[in-house]
Amino acid sequence: MLGAGLVGRAIAHDLSEDENVVLTVVDRDEQALSRLAERPRVRTLAADASDPGTLASAVEGADLVVGALPGFLGYRVLEELIRLGKNVVDISFFPEDPTDLDQLARQEGVTAVIDCGVAPGTSNLLVGWAASQLESVDDVSIFVGGLPVERVLPWEYKAPFSPVDVIEEYTRPARVVEDGRVVVKDPLSELELLYFEEVGTLEAFNTDGLRTLLTTIPARRMREKTLRYPGHAAKIGFLKDLGLFSTEPVDTPSGQVAPRDLTATLLFEQWRYRGEEPDLTVMRVEVSGRAGGKDVQYRFDLLDWYDSDEGLSSMARTTGFMAAAVARLVLAEQVERRGVFAPEILGADPELFDAIMRELLERGVVYRREDLAA
Amino acid sequence: MLGAGLVGRAIAHDLSEDENVVLTVVDRDEQALSRLAERPRVRTLAADASDPGTLASAVEGADLVVGALPGFLGYRVLEELIRLGKNVVDISFFPEDPTDLDQLARQEGVTAVIDCGVAPGTSNLLVGWAASQLESVDDVSIFVGGLPVERVLPWEYKAPFSPVDVIEEYTRPARVVEDGRVVVKDPLSELELLYFEEVGTLEAFNTDGLRTLLTTIPARRMREKTLRYPGHAAKIGFLKDLGLFSTEPVDTPSGQVAPRDLTATLLFEQWRYRGEEPDLTVMRVEVSGRAGGKDVQYRFDLLDWYDSDEGLSSMARTTGFMAAAVARLVLAEQVERRGVFAPEILGADPELFDAIMRELLERGVVYRREDLAA
Repeated sequence: MLGAGLVGRAIAHDLSEDENVVLTVVDRDEQALSRLAERPRVRTLAADASDPGTLASAVEGADLVVGALPGFLGYRVLEELIRLGKNVVDISFFPEDPTDLDQLARQEGVTAVIDCGVAPGTSNLLVGWAASQLESVDDVSIFVGGLPVERVLPWEYKAPFSPVDVIEEYTRPARVVEDGRVVVKDPLSELELLYFEEVGTLEAFNTDGLRTLLTTIPARRMREKTLRYPGHAAKIGFLKDLGLFSTEPVDTPSGQVAPRDLTATLLFEQWRYRGEEPDLTVMRVEVSGRAGGKDVQYRFDLLDWYDSDEGLSSMARTTGFMAAAVARLVLAEQVERRGVFAPEILGADPELFDAIMRELLERGVVYRREDLAA
Repeated sequence: MLGAGLVGRAIAHDLSEDENVVLTVVDRDEQALSRLAERPRVRTLAADASDPGTLASAVEGADLVVGALPGFLGYRVLEELIRLGKNVVDISFFPEDPTDLDQLARQEGVTAVIDCGVAPGTSNLLVGWAASQLESVDDVSIFVGGLPVERVLPWEYKAPFSPVDVIEEYTRPARVVEDGRVVVKDPLSELELLYFEEVGTLEAFNTDGLRTLLTTIPARRMREKTLRYPGHAAKIGFLKDLGLFSTEPVDTPSGQVAPRDLTATLLFEQWRYRGEEPDLTVMRVEVSGRAGGKDVQYRFDLLDWYDSDEGLSSMARTTGFMAAAVARLVLAEQVERRGVFAPEILGADPELFDAIMRELLERGVVYRREDLAA
């Protein structure tokens, strides 16, 4: 597998529990690798996977490559891996359109499951399953957020990854579906409050998270919203209005700088999880439509907490265990489909869906399902 | 007079109405000077008053020098002027302690009235008058703010001077008097809401504005608070918490910068008054104490608006007309005191107080007085 970051470590932990798996973890960071060295059946390799030659020799002989690299590397590395004929499970969440690679993967007879985290990831799986239960899909709503358990002013927020990526989420136009068509909304828009048991009231606002679902699921209405403790969107909107998210360099008396760079640098310290600081993940997926002449609505609720025994963040658990579950299915040759696709395709297959949900449940990542008459 | 900025122009306008005044206005900025060239009895001189030689020749033969230079030049230029034996009326609001220059001015037989704007300025005059009416001063409260008439999100605020100076106001520890002693408060602290007729509810928070009053007026309790439309302090506090007011350089991917420099640069555009955009000035001065065996409270209220006929901002009116009124008294040799002092000293003299208030009233700058039993 490629990448031994926060999530990469959770995936490696999980996969190395299987006696029939032999794992090579590749990362440039020897310190990150050293934390995995004592795991059974794990070999570590300090190397730069973004170099094609290094990549080819690192993955030689592997039945499957799990990609947990930064997003900006994801697409290019995935393309290389497909050309090398490798099956892939990927959580790099690269910004590029994967459609072009789908054709290539089919030609090479490769199975590449992308966006295999929690959202995108399990959210896709759940939507895929629900849509397969319906004759027509009316509404798909995904609400998801990773949050610190303890709320500390002024932010009441921490980020398990770089603030640059969070700011990107807050500035990229949000694609949603209305009346069956993809329309673009301002990020942070359509703010609403939702109540979640054990967590309380959270705010939800548009972000661009639907990705492959925009084309794979024919819904009349579809949206993904990010969940935060109330007040977050106003603070973020204020910084944005001030010009602090601009990437255009500004001349100041003490030097030239792109405001977003300074903002991300200042936020890095303020949004950083310290040591054992616990996080939680909240997700709600609602899918409604018609089945058997009736209005049907499915709802899935996830509330996952930091695991203090294993020292695993909820973000790493919910993302990594999903990727590991899909990896097992691909290794066991239970995924017949070739090409590049996301987990909604797996969700449409009841056996694969059940297998993944079982694996998540065994690790305490519980999606509580409720079937509601609309 | 030195300086032809926003306020300098208002002072020059006003003084040039007097037939017995001949005015030389000195500024480095020829464009600023050109706006005064057509005034009667006004000579303009494009020169750098911060250069001692230039200064000496520029003020040669003058009976009085009115200083309207930026604060960072104020103290040094004032010292030069005193050494040259010139009487001075100053609104540069320099940060240094003027006590040292007081001795020098007495030696040179010079009258230098500093802090001659609206606050500091008229606020000092009013407190000086009220204190002179009382046997003992219990409480002095000054509330003052310059605001745009139109409230535009997100700031509902404009600054007639550099955002750097406003940020300085928001970060400098605020000295107040409690139990007769000077104590230091956090700026932006002790937020309260106050209602003002025609303007509505404003918020008030501690800033460091008392200056000379801290030592000249023996009060049990004294404070100055800045007035803004509600919500301002929270926004400012948020930027401050983020580290955006720090003067410590920060390394970012696109360069090194002191955060305050970027913040001030971004705010400059957002806080700039456009063309004829009207402002207003709100001030309330309350002084209570004992007189003739009774509890007495004086209250002065100012509400001043942009003058569209003259194209003069309220800030320039309230500040400049005060400076001009004091300048006339000094020119008429009605101010006998020598040394460096602020207008509370003038306020203690009923004749000088009445003369200044009359001048302000004639120009429509109206301080409405209310005497309240406590």
